[in-house]
Amino acid sequence: MKKPYRKPEPGDFVEVKINDKIEKGKYLESHDRGILLLKLDNGYNIGLKKEDISEIKVVEKGESKKEISEMKLSGKKPIIDFYLTGGTISSKLDPSTGGVRNLIDSKEFFSVYPEIFDLADVNVKAPFSKQSEDMMPSDWIRIAKLVGKSLNDPQVKGVIISHGTDTLHFTAAALSFMLGKLSKPVILTYSQRSSDRGSSDSRLNLICSAHMALSDMAEVMLVGHATSNDDYCYALQGNKCRKMHTSRRDAFRPINCKPFAKIWKDGKIENIREDFNQRNKEKVIVDAVFDEKVSLFKAYPGNNSKVIDYFRKNFKGLVVEGTGLGHVSTNGKFNLVPELKKAIEKGLLVYMTPQTIYGRVDSHVYSSGRKLKEAGVVYLQDMLPETAYVKLGWILAHKQWRGSVATKRKMLENISKEFNPRLENKFLE
Amino acid sequence: MKKPYRKPEPGDFVEVKINDKIEKGKYLESHDRGILLLKLDNGYNIGLKKEDISEIKVVEKGESKKEISEMKLSGKKPIIDFYLTGGTISSKLDPSTGGVRNLIDSKEFFSVYPEIFDLADVNVKAPFSKQSEDMMPSDWIRIAKLVGKSLNDPQVKGVIISHGTDTLHFTAAALSFMLGKLSKPVILTYSQRSSDRGSSDSRLNLICSAHMALSDMAEVMLVGHATSNDDYCYALQGNKCRKMHTSRRDAFRPINCKPFAKIWKDGKIENIREDFNQRNKEKVIVDAVFDEKVSLFKAYPGNNSKVIDYFRKNFKGLVVEGTGLGHVSTNGKFNLVPELKKAIEKGLLVYMTPQTIYGRVDSHVYSSGRKLKEAGVVYLQDMLPETAYVKLGWILAHKQWRGSVATKRKMLENISKEFNPRLENKFLE
Repeated sequence: MKKPYRKPEPGDFVEVKINDKIEKGKYLESHDRGILLLKLDNGYNIGLKKEDISEIKVVEKGESKKEISEMKLSGKKPIIDFYLTGGTISSKLDPSTGGVRNLIDSKEFFSVYPEIFDLADVNVKAPFSKQSEDMMPSDWIRIAKLVGKSLNDPQVKGVIISHGTDTLHFTAAALSFMLGKLSKPVILTYSQRSSDRGSSDSRLNLICSAHMALSDMAEVMLVGHATSNDDYCYALQGNKCRKMHTSRRDAFRPINCKPFAKIWKDGKIENIREDFNQRNKEKVIVDAVFDEKVSLFKAYPGNNSKVIDYFRKNFKGLVVEGTGLGHVSTNGKFNLVPELKKAIEKGLLVYMTPQTIYGRVDSHVYSSGRKLKEAGVVYLQDMLPETAYVKLGWILAHKQWRGSVATKRKMLENISKEFNPRLENKFLE
Repeated sequence: MKKPYRKPEPGDFVEVKINDKIEKGKYLESHDRGILLLKLDNGYNIGLKKEDISEIKVVEKGESKKEISEMKLSGKKPIIDFYLTGGTISSKLDPSTGGVRNLIDSKEFFSVYPEIFDLADVNVKAPFSKQSEDMMPSDWIRIAKLVGKSLNDPQVKGVIISHGTDTLHFTAAALSFMLGKLSKPVILTYSQRSSDRGSSDSRLNLICSAHMALSDMAEVMLVGHATSNDDYCYALQGNKCRKMHTSRRDAFRPINCKPFAKIWKDGKIENIREDFNQRNKEKVIVDAVFDEKVSLFKAYPGNNSKVIDYFRKNFKGLVVEGTGLGHVSTNGKFNLVPELKKAIEKGLLVYMTPQTIYGRVDSHVYSSGRKLKEAGVVYLQDMLPETAYVKLGWILAHKQWRGSVATKRKMLENISKEFNPRLENKFLE
């Protein structure tokens, strides 16, 4: 920077002269001392090298953080309880490592995302901060209990949870079982790019999440980019979606069902499905338990049958990701059927899901399926392996549903739309 | 059937009067005694209830099986070696069980699919018959050796292998490594519906496979339906595709790359990629070996760290399907990093792939990735977990590539386009 300038405050509307061009926008806090961060009118952030700036002028003073905090308590807008749990959406680039680090200060978070305050009085809560690869079943339980409390507060219109992407679909599935008689929207959201990157997807995801949190759909939903553009979001069914790309902004895809709705940032919501649970006044039943003695196993050609013995010794329940319609090897030295049969006889509960991810398992078509069914493997139709794993751990934590018959009955019960009985055979096109 | 009729021979062109309508077509062998099977001019088969048929007339005698067998040896058409290995494409509905059973007679197979004889002199070989869930690494080796022999026969223009769908992408990946210096097309094909079902996808897949087998692309390719209609096929890169639906006809999807080509049944081929290996006169090097001491492991929240010890004790190599950009849990009681570090120090070779399936792993962005890389986990970019598993077993069967440094160098070498270095970030739209 050639000349010193009066430092503007975050939130101020400024004009910046840079290489003889003028850029206008809202001044944001930048985590890189050499960069001035501006939020443009079109919603995008740009970073300007301070050394290239010749002049900066505060055109209009912004609302101070204190004022923002007062907005939160306006009492005039619907109330959303917002849980920050970590992940990229609440992290920023760390210029010293080139990686990202967590934002744990909720004020800092909301100084970056002021628009959501226009829509609601947002109660920000940061119970803990974790990357989602570190989330454990005990975290699902913590989140479910907190969210349950919020939902049963008559003042609260809806709940948003921001969360890392890696295991977000596991947490969403857990909430879909742990929150019974859901009365209000429970929205999980995320970003694939941190908030201080120009290409961040967090802004659209957050605004659309707020619109959905105020909607009439009392469902556990994952709200995020529907395409790789910044045009609109989908509200996906929490227990029938999956992270399907390491880095795309629309990484989450609905599996074996349609999204509940399409949401634009101006608040337009287009319902795609009609089978959602309506907002209601019932008390939410928080049933937040999990038995960690469950495991997930993917079958593949050449897998050693010893592995089944490992599962039998260490777990009560096993979700198999079978090949094709739900198969494992049935011949030669890799034959898994006798090992599975023995393990089932000794009490291991074994469930079958598709490793193709899309589609429905079926034990009837091929002999491998018929043998597995005979051995006691229970086929879970079009349920995702990840959802089946979460559901099984949740069921086994209930004394009244233990034992192979009771567990099977409960696993096959359509508790939270985890089965889609309709004949849909679609990828999302 | 109201009147007895002179029984036509398979291959005869017939007119059938049924419920006062006339159906014309080629008479096929039917495996259900109550059903008369006709192949219509549009390529579809229809089944007619014999009891509804009032008249049947042979309009033109068909070529006998003997004549078909002579066509095979015409000497005037290019030669394709065709390996039947089992799977739905060579199976038929068994009316007694409602399931399917294998066709192992190659004449029976080709009496159902005569069109492929119009394109080439087809040498049918049925070395064994297995559902693909039962395929093992030793089967990959058998197929590679047979195919290698065919490829090195100067008379043979290309090879087709029909195979079940469940693990077809594993076999395709194995062939992509086991057949070095590929000189001709190696086509794997399949069907999702058996040949005697009206909706069978086998006919289009076979015809398009024959066109590709005669093409200039010396690649291991999977040829099958590109959409759920019967309009055209894709030729997918064998080690960058995956069965992504339990039952759709276009179940196989290209992952992290484009298809090589689009093929229509009239023989039109539209090249989508230009980076294919040209047909050439080199001798194919068959390197068909596999070390079964490799395993595949998918990380998930709540996975017990004991499992790593199981892998260390029983295997030399482990392919991890990490969450997100290639992560595992790094905190609390589910922290897998110390166990992986210990296992690696004791000699286990650990490689990272994405469980999102689409996208590229990256160890640099988040701390979990950096810790895993530090512990010695090697990141495999955009390679599929299934391909990585096959490649690792193939590499470890070579003495000269053993030891963590040599194995790592070979695993990171782009041997058969298993890495896509170009910045493509696409789902197949």
